[in-house]
Amino acid sequence: MKKIAILGSTGSIGRNTVDVIRNFPDHFSIEALTVNTRIDLLEKQVDEFHPKVVAVKDEKLATELKRRIGNKCEVLSGEEGLLSIAADYDYDIFVGAMVGFSGLAPTLEAIKRGKRIALANKETLVVAGELVTELAKKYNAELLPVDSEHSAIFQCLVGEDLSGVDKLILTASGGPFLHKTKTELAGVTVKEALNHPNWKMGNKITIDSASMMNKGLEVIEARWLFDLPCEKIEIVVHPQSIVHSMVRFVDGSMKAQMSMPDMKLPIQYALTYPERFASQFVSTHLPFIQTLTFFEPDFDKFECLKLAFDVLDAGGTSPCILSASNEVAVDKFLKGKIKFSAIPEIISKSLERFENHLKPDLETIIMCDKETRIFAEQLV
Amino acid sequence: MKKIAILGSTGSIGRNTVDVIRNFPDHFSIEALTVNTRIDLLEKQVDEFHPKVVAVKDEKLATELKRRIGNKCEVLSGEEGLLSIAADYDYDIFVGAMVGFSGLAPTLEAIKRGKRIALANKETLVVAGELVTELAKKYNAELLPVDSEHSAIFQCLVGEDLSGVDKLILTASGGPFLHKTKTELAGVTVKEALNHPNWKMGNKITIDSASMMNKGLEVIEARWLFDLPCEKIEIVVHPQSIVHSMVRFVDGSMKAQMSMPDMKLPIQYALTYPERFASQFVSTHLPFIQTLTFFEPDFDKFECLKLAFDVLDAGGTSPCILSASNEVAVDKFLKGKIKFSAIPEIISKSLERFENHLKPDLETIIMCDKETRIFAEQLV
Repeated sequence: MKKIAILGSTGSIGRNTVDVIRNFPDHFSIEALTVNTRIDLLEKQVDEFHPKVVAVKDEKLATELKRRIGNKCEVLSGEEGLLSIAADYDYDIFVGAMVGFSGLAPTLEAIKRGKRIALANKETLVVAGELVTELAKKYNAELLPVDSEHSAIFQCLVGEDLSGVDKLILTASGGPFLHKTKTELAGVTVKEALNHPNWKMGNKITIDSASMMNKGLEVIEARWLFDLPCEKIEIVVHPQSIVHSMVRFVDGSMKAQMSMPDMKLPIQYALTYPERFASQFVSTHLPFIQTLTFFEPDFDKFECLKLAFDVLDAGGTSPCILSASNEVAVDKFLKGKIKFSAIPEIISKSLERFENHLKPDLETIIMCDKETRIFAEQLV
Repeated sequence: MKKIAILGSTGSIGRNTVDVIRNFPDHFSIEALTVNTRIDLLEKQVDEFHPKVVAVKDEKLATELKRRIGNKCEVLSGEEGLLSIAADYDYDIFVGAMVGFSGLAPTLEAIKRGKRIALANKETLVVAGELVTELAKKYNAELLPVDSEHSAIFQCLVGEDLSGVDKLILTASGGPFLHKTKTELAGVTVKEALNHPNWKMGNKITIDSASMMNKGLEVIEARWLFDLPCEKIEIVVHPQSIVHSMVRFVDGSMKAQMSMPDMKLPIQYALTYPERFASQFVSTHLPFIQTLTFFEPDFDKFECLKLAFDVLDAGGTSPCILSASNEVAVDKFLKGKIKFSAIPEIISKSLERFENHLKPDLETIIMCDKETRIFAEQLV
């Protein structure tokens, strides 16, 4: 019986994690849950899974939840509440399902306790990959990817030696705008950008998929997660999202992991690894799908992808600048304040504005994140 | 430095094995070679690799080779010569690259010595799978597949637990007659049948690919090699031969092994496993290939495939009857004596003629093979 803490339990990954755990009541129990604001759903999760503690980032909503659920479980609040759950409460597996930069600090707490980290919060590795992987090694924490791409690579590498790896090949659906021209892309609407062809995800990541920044962030994540240099990572566009990613080995052999797209599969694997538990979430039969296609990515059209590869080579605080300015830009786009084509512009300007600090510590990263956000907020 | 014995060094697999070994002179040396008749090529191989011993099955040609090469190396002859190489000479890895039933006895000798067996001779597992795998366990011999499909499955299973396997999914190119109707298939010529779209192989296996018997034999081989029941093995037609086979796990995740088709890759892996050596034999870049397709196999059109699944369920000596009568039928077809559609007819009649003996020992298998051949030879 493994005890689970889910940070971000009402988001897309959080809800899928709850679905997986519901399927295996003899193997997993939920000990702790956190949310930013969605206390209605959190209340239902408390009633179903009886965690020992929950945390709500919004202080007022925390008080409201407390009023509603009485002494069913302990209720913490604020950033400190989330941190305290990671640092002070009992669990075996930490599911990092928060969105954006705020996932970093609680994840570091879990790492320092040498826990298994099922990591869906890609910003943690994007902005602080070097720090996070060093600490994970130092404290013997297991970093298990939840992104379908990184889970695919992780699965392809099971039993293989990293020295035998020639390339990690991340697949990209290409998002809703794969076949648009660069000019058409500049003027797409929020509604069009939120209409992902294969995956149902949160708003931020769906926009990142449309700009292909999501794939860029994943490339940076992969660089740290698998401790491989930039030149060993490449992208292939695969619109059907059946092959979730691949590894090419030095002998020329390639391995791919495949399934119908469903986040419950990589989530479950991160919880059960090295075992595989029987489940019916996905049923994949290739003759039903019939055709899988593969193309080169268009770095000219998808400028965000190009920018991500640039900072991957540069390292230091540049991925933090990229990620922070992208968060701000995506938020502005979602609110209808900027055009789609302004997203890479804001990122480029932010990268130009700030100096790159190599081997940053947590304080430097937090400062870089803050300064970048302030700068990017002022841009239009 | 690993010492290699190649039984069948001048056939397609044998020559590819020699190519691999030529690439890694610091890791492998050739200690022993055997051929049926092709002494011209064997002589060249002797000059290049200086084995300690060779064997030629044909007695006259053995004498001729002896005359030609003098005391460059020892020359044995006949079935006994092949057996003696497997049983009495020094090597670390036994490459079983012989064609047909004659591969069984020498392979058993190598197994009894607890060697690594790189097994390309599929008849060994088809006719005597139960016996071979039992002996391999008893004598701690490693059975490493050289068929691209089984190597693919073996690679997908590295680091995985067999209990997590839901299905082994063997891919089949469908051969040259994938799009022919059943009526058209009945009257195809030898030349058409020898024209495989993806793989350059020996005649026997190329005809087996055209009838899809090759895939049937591989299903039987997989059943023993991976010790899984019949219902866990299925076939998907994949005309591009890029995905060499797949494994679906109980959680719904699938792994596939891919590459441009080249037998040197699985051969090399069987020699270097668990390591992977860098080589340039294949270079696979999916955007060059662009499209991979997958279909259900047509068991009605490809009767040989249906027959193979029947004997897979039946077990005992029935796979031996299938394989022996198929060898005879293919030989007749190659010599222009029968139509293509007579191949499954001869096999069906042979399977009807003989009783199935469960858990056969080697003597029973040899007797079954002989009797089936005599019977099948008489059919037209």
